[in-house]
Amino acid sequence: MKPVVSIIMGSTSDLPVMEKAAKILDELEIPFEINALSAHRTPAEVEKFAKGASDRGIKVVIAAAGMAAHLPGVIASMTTIPVIGVPIKASLEGLDALLAIVQMPPGIPVATVGINGAMNAGILAAQMLAVGEAQIAGKLSAYKESLKDKIVKANEELSEVKFKFKTN
Amino acid sequence: MKPVVSIIMGSTSDLPVMEKAAKILDELEIPFEINALSAHRTPAEVEKFAKGASDRGIKVVIAAAGMAAHLPGVIASMTTIPVIGVPIKASLEGLDALLAIVQMPPGIPVATVGINGAMNAGILAAQMLAVGEAQIAGKLSAYKESLKDKIVKANEELSEVKFKFKTN
Amino acid sequence: MKPVVSIIMGSTSDLPVMEKAAKILDELEIPFEINALSAHRTPAEVEKFAKGASDRGIKVVIAAAGMAAHLPGVIASMTTIPVIGVPIKASLEGLDALLAIVQMPPGIPVATVGINGAMNAGILAAQMLAVGEAQIAGKLSAYKESLKDKIVKANEELSEVKFKFKTN
Amino acid sequence: MKPVVSIIMGSTSDLPVMEKAAKILDELEIPFEINALSAHRTPAEVEKFAKGASDRGIKVVIAAAGMAAHLPGVIASMTTIPVIGVPIKASLEGLDALLAIVQMPPGIPVATVGINGAMNAGILAAQMLAVGEAQIAGKLSAYKESLKDKIVKANEELSEVKFKFKTN
Amino acid sequence: MKPVVSIIMGSTSDLPVMEKAAKILDELEIPFEINALSAHRTPAEVEKFAKGASDRGIKVVIAAAGMAAHLPGVIASMTTIPVIGVPIKASLEGLDALLAIVQMPPGIPVATVGINGAMNAGILAAQMLAVGEAQIAGKLSAYKESLKDKIVKANEELSEVKFKFKTN
Amino acid sequence: MKPVVSIIMGSTSDLPVMEKAAKILDELEIPFEINALSAHRTPAEVEKFAKGASDRGIKVVIAAAGMAAHLPGVIASMTTIPVIGVPIKASLEGLDALLAIVQMPPGIPVATVGINGAMNAGILAAQMLAVGEAQIAGKLSAYKESLKDKIVKANEELSEVKFKFKTN
Amino acid sequence: MKPVVSIIMGSTSDLPVMEKAAKILDELEIPFEINALSAHRTPAEVEKFAKGASDRGIKVVIAAAGMAAHLPGVIASMTTIPVIGVPIKASLEGLDALLAIVQMPPGIPVATVGINGAMNAGILAAQMLAVGEAQIAGKLSAYKESLKDKIVKANEELSEVKFKFKTN
Amino acid sequence: MKPVVSIIMGSTSDLPVMEKAAKILDELEIPFEINALSAHRTPAEVEKFAKGASDRGIKVVIAAAGMAAHLPGVIASMTTIPVIGVPIKASLEGLDALLAIVQMPPGIPVATVGINGAMNAGILAAQMLAVGEAQIAGKLSAYKESLKDKIVKANEELSEVKFKFKTN
Repeated sequence: MKPVVSIIMGSTSDLPVMEKAAKILDELEIPFEINALSAHRTPAEVEKFAKGASDRGIKVVIAAAGMAAHLPGVIASMTTIPVIGVPIKASLEGLDALLAIVQMPPGIPVATVGINGAMNAGILAAQMLAVGEAQIAGKLSAYKESLKDKIVKANEELSEVKFKFKTN
Repeated sequence: MKPVVSIIMGSTSDLPVMEKAAKILDELEIPFEINALSAHRTPAEVEKFAKGASDRGIKVVIAAAGMAAHLPGVIASMTTIPVIGVPIKASLEGLDALLAIVQMPPGIPVATVGINGAMNAGILAAQMLAVGEAQIAGKLSAYKESLKDKIVKANEELSEVKFKFKTN
Repeated sequence: MKPVVSIIMGSTSDLPVMEKAAKILDELEIPFEINALSAHRTPAEVEKFAKGASDRGIKVVIAAAGMAAHLPGVIASMTTIPVIGVPIKASLEGLDALLAIVQMPPGIPVATVGINGAMNAGILAAQMLAVGEAQIAGKLSAYKESLKDKIVKANEELSEVKFKFKTN
Repeated sequence: MKPVVSIIMGSTSDLPVMEKAAKILDELEIPFEINALSAHRTPAEVEKFAKGASDRGIKVVIAAAGMAAHLPGVIASMTTIPVIGVPIKASLEGLDALLAIVQMPPGIPVATVGINGAMNAGILAAQMLAVGEAQIAGKLSAYKESLKDKIVKANEELSEVKFKFKTN
Repeated sequence: MKPVVSIIMGSTSDLPVMEKAAKILDELEIPFEINALSAHRTPAEVEKFAKGASDRGIKVVIAAAGMAAHLPGVIASMTTIPVIGVPIKASLEGLDALLAIVQMPPGIPVATVGINGAMNAGILAAQMLAVGEAQIAGKLSAYKESLKDKIVKANEELSEVKFKFKTN
Repeated sequence: MKPVVSIIMGSTSDLPVMEKAAKILDELEIPFEINALSAHRTPAEVEKFAKGASDRGIKVVIAAAGMAAHLPGVIASMTTIPVIGVPIKASLEGLDALLAIVQMPPGIPVATVGINGAMNAGILAAQMLAVGEAQIAGKLSAYKESLKDKIVKANEELSEVKFKFKTN
Repeated sequence: MKPVVSIIMGSTSDLPVMEKAAKILDELEIPFEINALSAHRTPAEVEKFAKGASDRGIKVVIAAAGMAAHLPGVIASMTTIPVIGVPIKASLEGLDALLAIVQMPPGIPVATVGINGAMNAGILAAQMLAVGEAQIAGKLSAYKESLKDKIVKANEELSEVKFKFKTN
Repeated sequence: MKPVVSIIMGSTSDLPVMEKAAKILDELEIPFEINALSAHRTPAEVEKFAKGASDRGIKVVIAAAGMAAHLPGVIASMTTIPVIGVPIKASLEGLDALLAIVQMPPGIPVATVGINGAMNAGILAAQMLAVGEAQIAGKLSAYKESLKDKIVKANEELSEVKFKFKTN
């Protein structure tokens, strides 16, 4: 089994957030790898990773970073594979990471999801893969359908809430 | 008893905030319903709700959402009933939800209250109903009068605070 | 003809923004008045206005203010008529006015629209009136329908845009 | 003993912050009073307070408020006594209260201190009183001198910190 | 020629920004369509578009919106095709649109680019298509290579700048 | 005639803003001086000014600064005269100057007015002087009364605005 | 042993942050001193320190401050030694301190690091010393090399994370 | 003449800002070079530059970038020469660039100056060089002295401003 999605994070402190990306890829049965790389501490390794990813069969990169979050942009500058950026909340409520990832200059986009939005990064990776692979699209539709169950459950819980003038 | 106000929230995690809206409507003896609906996870149900609300006798909708909070605006786009939006604090201190609710384009307003301002949403709904129903206006006046009691109590507490140069 | 909506602004410099509220009320054939009042410069007049509005037949107040925008909240504290607040962009991109209007304490809501959102304030006022008056609801539906025309026109314009790989 | 400074707060929940204003006034032996008043819940009482303050011998008002903090500005609109505004951190890290207090329109200033800056409000009140009363200026100089002691103490603590290449 | 990318914008006032997306798709010889749709003014048309896009052969959607920018999220809630969101600067320097697009709830991602980042949206769309189509990857590599020319040119210009202590 | 208020600014580029402080002091017949001093470029002169102000008869200092606005705080650290800080809008919409002035540490307050709020700084200075001088209080009351005239004028202008459903 | 770097902080409450600067200087075997000084509470001592630092052999100053953080700028105004500013997070997530330190006027720079970025301040001080001392450059290179070890360790930890579709 | 300072910018559009850095270095007679390099468009050239700078005799790098400004951090990750970062105002008032430059992770500092603060970047570079070269310190002292002249001139201009109650 060869990975098609590569999850990159700067340190294992990001793992509690980023394992949500892993979990959803696992549910959707998409092979992936997880590695730690730092744009600032291991620039040579980042370069090696970014330039070799396509040849290793990686189709989408998910890169997470906090603060002056350069990792997603640095990878994006070295490959034409789509890079999904996950801003990690480490300071300033995550606003610094969001801006440092999303405000890329013309020519080098990073597909940015919300602050700590690792689960959405996983889904977005699957959506990108589904562009070329109809089977994944089917799984995504099923997953999307399943989201409604939470709402059904929520309504059941809400029906337990009692007020005199509550009518349902 | 048919509901005239409908409280909508994206998930039961919003309930601790939103039950303040329910509580004040209950105090003001205004029949209401509470449901969970998600602009993003159950768009079809949101549409059905929004388009049918008026015919079911709903006069005002209170919709709560956090982050990229689309629910109030999406409902407002499908009905002419006034929609009150409650920004839920889930990230960025609630600023994202506030802006995503209040900054609606020309043509489709959402009556926005403060971040986590569910109680005010309930009162505002009552004020809107009072436009057509004098009896509710009377209840609101009585309620408004009662707000002063807190201040009286506060002053009693403050009279207990002791400083040498405090004169009251 | 007696006014049912009252538009209040702090100075005539707000008129270029606020006349959009007047214009939409005019289109919807809702009688209204426009006055200048300042929470800070004419507090006595504001009080007189707020306390007498209901008896004069005013059903909804639209209050516009910039910077430390107190006018909508001050009026709301003195009446149970719903007050719609319009944050005027005068400094800090209008963020100061938005926060000073929307972040009202529990008990005294202001129905806030977007920064410089005068047109939406007018529509929201009409929606509130429609709670008690079915005829206005009909006009609002017609108005809402008309919004689509802009989109139709926009698409006609876009069909003129020429690119080699543009397919429509 | 008649108060010359009046501390006003919206609710007793502000007391833990505001008692620092009381404490410093007490240290400086300046008679003061503390009361609870709400711009939004008790506008009539605020008006009565603001208009009567000067005649009762009040020379400076310290007014604290959070969120859409109108209290200092509303008082300032009804008196020519200087009003010191204390933004209380209740939401958005206190930025909403700061902007709602400091960004007053031309004509009606509020002397604003930092977020939760109650102690500085007390000192500023004393500085204003000292404009007309030389004795207070002397106490303030003594107080200012005493601030240095904290730094001396801090340096003693820092001298305990041990590092191999630390030279002091 | 059938379109594989669909560019959606709320009004023709977004065209000066969004035609940069069209231009780069044209350069990369990727068939696309451009339409105007409004999440708030034409919700039914948005639904029809979103649900039918996949069957019409659309592989990627680029959706632009300003202020309380719901369009990308609303489309994303109704399809599993990847949606690229372009925040348009219309107020608050575009921060409102950015947050309203990027901060999507778990389950429904929007691939967000920078404020007014239409060109990057076009490139990102091509990168997504290249996941399934090797030929586009080649064009993207060539494009990426061409970006360096600007830098070469910039250096030529800079060599013209004269200072006494400038050494190059 | 000896000055009792001293207006300090960092450079003559602040004059268009700060002359509003001068103008209102002139109207209120309060002797004042205007000088340029820079906390960063002329620290020795600032120190000399701050330490000598009281002995020269200065009762209140108005200090204006932009960006990392240290001037008001630096003066406040060297005197017990009240210092009024005017944040000048030079970058970041003036938010940097506002925070750099208002967020003073415990012990050293600066009485901060709004961004570019020079006129209010002048009025606040007069209010402080009036603490010890009843005559100025009278002038301030008269001035406050005159603010209403603008509103009267505004209403006259608004009465000229014509709409079919406008009732006044 | 004479210190070449001087660490200055406003109070011992900053020590938990600032000892990271001390620790890295210790590791790099660079003699340093730590003192408490306050721009606002001990301006005379700050002046004495700043003016005498160069003669005492200090080559770089690291100054930490929170809120309206003037200390780094005030020192920078009185010496030509480079001053590194560390914004301390004490309110508003540290944004106030960051802006009050970094936004210095033309002529007087402060080399600003991130919020609570004491460790980086220590490294930056070493980098500045290395401009004139080749030996420190060598130590910095070794230190930089060591940063990679964390990444190696992180990857070992990540290899322990188990998912069905995880391939590494 | 070999350069000791290297000024790097992403494009010639940054030149109007960055030539202020060149100008002050020229005045201080410090040899420098100016080049265009892009972290995102020419990563290989950036790497080559960063790794070779020290051997070429470069002592300090000044790197300017806007938006998701990665250039200074990327260079800093590849050298132990101090890197001065200049946030360029290109969007969001420059706040995005400031945060993307200053909020570097532990281990890799960037010495950040204010938004568009190119002149200060030049001075800071000179200050760093002066750590190892006494002669530059002398020039900096002379320069610092000259800053006072602006203030003298400003006071002359201010003495021309005429008001009735202006005393100087």
